[in-house]
Amino acid sequence: MPWYQLDDANDPKLDALAKQYDLHPLHLEDARNPDEGVKVDSGSNYTFAVFKPVRLIPDPDNPGEEMPSFSPVDIFAGKDFLVTISDPTCPTTEQALTRARRDGDDEHPGKLVSLILDTIVDLYFPAIDHFDDRIDQLEDKVFDDPSPEILQAVFAIKRELIDLRRVLVNTRDAALHLQRDPNTIIDADYQPYVRDTYDHIARLLDSVETQRDLLNNTLDIYLSSVSNRTNEVMKVLTVLGTIALPALAISGIYGMNLKGLPFEDSPHGAEWVAGITVLATAILLFVLRKLDWL
Amino acid sequence: MPWYQLDDANDPKLDALAKQYDLHPLHLEDARNPDEGVKVDSGSNYTFAVFKPVRLIPDPDNPGEEMPSFSPVDIFAGKDFLVTISDPTCPTTEQALTRARRDGDDEHPGKLVSLILDTIVDLYFPAIDHFDDRIDQLEDKVFDDPSPEILQAVFAIKRELIDLRRVLVNTRDAALHLQRDPNTIIDADYQPYVRDTYDHIARLLDSVETQRDLLNNTLDIYLSSVSNRTNEVMKVLTVLGTIALPALAISGIYGMNLKGLPFEDSPHGAEWVAGITVLATAILLFVLRKLDWL
Amino acid sequence: MPWYQLDDANDPKLDALAKQYDLHPLHLEDARNPDEGVKVDSGSNYTFAVFKPVRLIPDPDNPGEEMPSFSPVDIFAGKDFLVTISDPTCPTTEQALTRARRDGDDEHPGKLVSLILDTIVDLYFPAIDHFDDRIDQLEDKVFDDPSPEILQAVFAIKRELIDLRRVLVNTRDAALHLQRDPNTIIDADYQPYVRDTYDHIARLLDSVETQRDLLNNTLDIYLSSVSNRTNEVMKVLTVLGTIALPALAISGIYGMNLKGLPFEDSPHGAEWVAGITVLATAILLFVLRKLDWL
Amino acid sequence: MPWYQLDDANDPKLDALAKQYDLHPLHLEDARNPDEGVKVDSGSNYTFAVFKPVRLIPDPDNPGEEMPSFSPVDIFAGKDFLVTISDPTCPTTEQALTRARRDGDDEHPGKLVSLILDTIVDLYFPAIDHFDDRIDQLEDKVFDDPSPEILQAVFAIKRELIDLRRVLVNTRDAALHLQRDPNTIIDADYQPYVRDTYDHIARLLDSVETQRDLLNNTLDIYLSSVSNRTNEVMKVLTVLGTIALPALAISGIYGMNLKGLPFEDSPHGAEWVAGITVLATAILLFVLRKLDWL
Amino acid sequence: MPWYQLDDANDPKLDALAKQYDLHPLHLEDARNPDEGVKVDSGSNYTFAVFKPVRLIPDPDNPGEEMPSFSPVDIFAGKDFLVTISDPTCPTTEQALTRARRDGDDEHPGKLVSLILDTIVDLYFPAIDHFDDRIDQLEDKVFDDPSPEILQAVFAIKRELIDLRRVLVNTRDAALHLQRDPNTIIDADYQPYVRDTYDHIARLLDSVETQRDLLNNTLDIYLSSVSNRTNEVMKVLTVLGTIALPALAISGIYGMNLKGLPFEDSPHGAEWVAGITVLATAILLFVLRKLDWL
Repeated sequence: MPWYQLDDANDPKLDALAKQYDLHPLHLEDARNPDEGVKVDSGSNYTFAVFKPVRLIPDPDNPGEEMPSFSPVDIFAGKDFLVTISDPTCPTTEQALTRARRDGDDEHPGKLVSLILDTIVDLYFPAIDHFDDRIDQLEDKVFDDPSPEILQAVFAIKRELIDLRRVLVNTRDAALHLQRDPNTIIDADYQPYVRDTYDHIARLLDSVETQRDLLNNTLDIYLSSVSNRTNEVMKVLTVLGTIALPALAISGIYGMNLKGLPFEDSPHGAEWVAGITVLATAILLFVLRKLDWL
Repeated sequence: MPWYQLDDANDPKLDALAKQYDLHPLHLEDARNPDEGVKVDSGSNYTFAVFKPVRLIPDPDNPGEEMPSFSPVDIFAGKDFLVTISDPTCPTTEQALTRARRDGDDEHPGKLVSLILDTIVDLYFPAIDHFDDRIDQLEDKVFDDPSPEILQAVFAIKRELIDLRRVLVNTRDAALHLQRDPNTIIDADYQPYVRDTYDHIARLLDSVETQRDLLNNTLDIYLSSVSNRTNEVMKVLTVLGTIALPALAISGIYGMNLKGLPFEDSPHGAEWVAGITVLATAILLFVLRKLDWL
Repeated sequence: MPWYQLDDANDPKLDALAKQYDLHPLHLEDARNPDEGVKVDSGSNYTFAVFKPVRLIPDPDNPGEEMPSFSPVDIFAGKDFLVTISDPTCPTTEQALTRARRDGDDEHPGKLVSLILDTIVDLYFPAIDHFDDRIDQLEDKVFDDPSPEILQAVFAIKRELIDLRRVLVNTRDAALHLQRDPNTIIDADYQPYVRDTYDHIARLLDSVETQRDLLNNTLDIYLSSVSNRTNEVMKVLTVLGTIALPALAISGIYGMNLKGLPFEDSPHGAEWVAGITVLATAILLFVLRKLDWL
Repeated sequence: MPWYQLDDANDPKLDALAKQYDLHPLHLEDARNPDEGVKVDSGSNYTFAVFKPVRLIPDPDNPGEEMPSFSPVDIFAGKDFLVTISDPTCPTTEQALTRARRDGDDEHPGKLVSLILDTIVDLYFPAIDHFDDRIDQLEDKVFDDPSPEILQAVFAIKRELIDLRRVLVNTRDAALHLQRDPNTIIDADYQPYVRDTYDHIARLLDSVETQRDLLNNTLDIYLSSVSNRTNEVMKVLTVLGTIALPALAISGIYGMNLKGLPFEDSPHGAEWVAGITVLATAILLFVLRKLDWL
Repeated sequence: MPWYQLDDANDPKLDALAKQYDLHPLHLEDARNPDEGVKVDSGSNYTFAVFKPVRLIPDPDNPGEEMPSFSPVDIFAGKDFLVTISDPTCPTTEQALTRARRDGDDEHPGKLVSLILDTIVDLYFPAIDHFDDRIDQLEDKVFDDPSPEILQAVFAIKRELIDLRRVLVNTRDAALHLQRDPNTIIDADYQPYVRDTYDHIARLLDSVETQRDLLNNTLDIYLSSVSNRTNEVMKVLTVLGTIALPALAISGIYGMNLKGLPFEDSPHGAEWVAGITVLATAILLFVLRKLDWL
């Protein structure tokens, strides 16, 4: 069985193959669209599939961090031919194609498609684990030191999860299509493998949902920590104000150019007034604590 | 095949055409209602469709910004006639009609309808990209400078997305109707094109959902930035209060008209007291930082 | 065809009609229940329907404002008779019945029911427009002057929308029932009118959803405005504190009864000290702004 | 037809009846489980039903308030026998059984079950009205005086509504089961009554949803009132600070032991300085209000 | 009937059994995957099931607390053989297997599977009760003393409930599969037991939903308590400021080195000025309370 591997959808070879195998112009257009989405479309003479394998690349905005990146692979799988178009620099796609190739070109295209999909789905797990690690780190940090950087990281991960979830949902629909469609290219023998892949995608989506819940928790923790800290700072201000008040008021009183203040002429006036000030401060602090205001 | 192009649903020609082709009075009423919604209604002898092409117009409330605007196009497509009613000043509708017209009046009306719908849907993408750009700008600004103007912009975009989403959901239902309805005017040959258009609308709706999520993120960032800033300002107040406290208390004490204060008569009293004040301030700041209150 | 119009479900005439036309006791009970909900129940020999026309009445809690009010209309529509029970003081119901009556008593009851429902649904639009106007006003006001009165208005409208939405959802179900039920009283000829009414209700519900979204936006704007204002007030406090601090500290220092203070005996001491104070304040303000704390 | 009324599921008589009528051990286990949920299970020879009538009892945590309490009733309804197990001290259950009993033991068990269910559902309405009243009171109070007690009441009602909603949802499912199940014990004659009961439960659930919305509104009002009050208190502080500032600064300046201060030796110095102080305060307040900071 | 009990999926005996009974390699892979999820997969010659019994273990992060832990049990149930793989140190699994074993090895494998599932589901109830207790404690504490530790506990329980809910949802799907699947291993005689188990899982899931609602309530209470406390602290600050203001202003005035102040030379000047200060403070407090600012 011939297996054509192209590196680029704009390769003129694709037009020749399209003519030879009667590929639909809309599928060619999809393959050449850089924003194409994951999908499976089964026609009478072949199945067209787009998958989006993931790999981790260095994050340009956060040095030292990694982020998931998707490079699509397009597959035209007929009864007796296979055309795959993929970016040869993406290690995930290469791994998927290599595993399928190892099993031999003589295999049925349906089996090859199910093998490629299986490898692609298995390679989503490291991306999910990567998010798990980053969310764990954020959760640890947010209790100790709720800084705006954590917030920025939470929203960055949220944004990446939105993309990942979209790809996974579409891949799940594609796997369902490969099971249910009357024109499906997958034989009954390989259906258990597609069903197994479907289960894996469902578990991946479960994990993504859990991660979104955890990120929302982290956000709630952050916000409540900030309002807690504001509260703490307010209390410090109040304690300082409470300590300062009697000292300021009493020293103000004795700074007045008036006659008739007690202890005014006593040689130990300073000691007496200091004692009164300390006592007044202690009483004030005691009353406030008693009223549960501090 | 005759193709009648009217500029206004109140044109008396429409009444003549209604009589000639037996158009339903409810459809005429819809075509003349300025608030009509997107829909497709297939009868036994013709299909009535309302689409809402989008174009970007200058936003009257935000000079320098653009906002999406919708001008409806009404289509009556029978087996051997086509009536279209559209605002001739809307470039999007004109582009859709021109592309269909180019393919020739001799074509089957079903093909013309699918071509018009396809062009209209493709022209939603620039509107979505426009929102993507504006949301990106807001996200960049909200971290640097969370001002109420950003908030106002977030809510304005939210409002526009609510409208856009409603039009897209109804257009998706219309595309589904053109695929599934037993009376559909679209031949089996053109069904792949309608299915393709349906996929495009699904991707547009996906993007709108993502944009709503991102706007909610922006809102959360704004709110947490504001409470963070309040916290910062409180800390500044507390630091200032902490610095001022010993100076005020000690200078107050030495301003009292009392006898018996230490250093009162020392020729270097001012130096001694200044030293004590600086020391007390330093100790206070150190204690507060130690207790993690600053 | 006889059409009996009663003003009150407790009219003994209703019992006579119930005996004559074999009306079900549960339907009589429903008609006499002041809290009855919108519904359609098709039996073998007649259809029982409850609709809730809306009208705007002065709001007792907000002088100068209007609020929607519902007064139910009960309909028993057999193959050759029609019984309607409605509050004669409600202008909306009267308008619906008058329009149906104008078309003649000789009409088929199914047509009359569809006409009544159509008018009732059309008269929901002014109520929706009324809410649109009020929400627009609130949105304009909330940015300029976020007062608790706006909040109260938002929650009052929310409460009214909850009621309106419930009536609309039940009316939509009733319209669906009139289309789908095998015992439906509506002939195939009038089905397009019921389908059209159904579309109108769907659009009304769309508008209610949009209004709820807009009210939630208004609420978010209000809350963020309040926290913004708190922030502003804090900054004013901090600026005032910053301006006061050097003046208070320095004047306190020169108020001390100590020897050795610089400029103490200089004839231009006041000028020197004033200069130092102004300089210290300026430096402090500059440092705070530099550190982005103000 | 024999009707056995037991007061306690642990009554040994139940075992005898179980043997006589071949009751399933799982149903006996359910009847004896104090935490059993509402359900209907139709077997070939009898129907087992558990309902949960509600009654209002004094709330132990809030003296003066009432709260809903549920005491289950178990029913085994065969073609020619009826076994009911209910707490004889619960007035709601007694009322339901009495009404069914009044209609006579000779009735068909299906009719008796539908009568019992109907009475039980009707007696949920007072519980819903009770919540309506309490929520109305809370809404009135929260605007006037947002105290933490209101919050506690809101959360207590929320918790009770969660329980009530769960019972209602399960009762709705049970009523549906009595309509749809092929083994249902309810004859076609009594189906309109079960359908009517189903409608009542749907309306009760509608009310519960509305009440949850209203409680969430109350919560939002509370939270925004608190942040509003914080804002108000901050403004008072700022006004006080603004009034105090010139007085403190100017009196500090004239307290300095320096030469060269204006008016120092004027016999009307105090008047001049007082005038300057009042003027400075007025200008400061005017500027702040002008800048919209107060 | 042979029943093979293995302690570890990596036991080479499993490979021998796989060969003997033709077990599918994907099922072996699942059994050996430590992250396998709950599922039931019925093939033509046997049913493969994975359940996740729960037990409470000491929480490593919160000394003195317990947390739920899951150790999977794998079951291969053919028509005339049973293979179970379970961790022998998990008391929950042991209890489930012991109860099934007690009923005898001669039983039909379908009955044994339903008994094992029934015991496993019953043992989820103590875990749910454990959460109920902890949430009750948190609710009591959060009103008295809203500390960040409560927040941390709320989020920890939320996280554990996410895991528990996922296991329960999958177990519910598995129970449904055992009822509906055409290849199901459960005879009609045991179907009522599986249905009963299904009801129990539904009730468990209901409880988990309720607990999530209650935790969200607790979170809302916490957040509103914190903002309430901030408000209280602000009021204390304002009261202190109000008390201090007249004393500071008046004592400042009398500290000025100016002529012409009233009472300046009076022998009872101090008494007069003290009286004026007290009076001014009282008036200020009265005005603020009158304006409802305190």
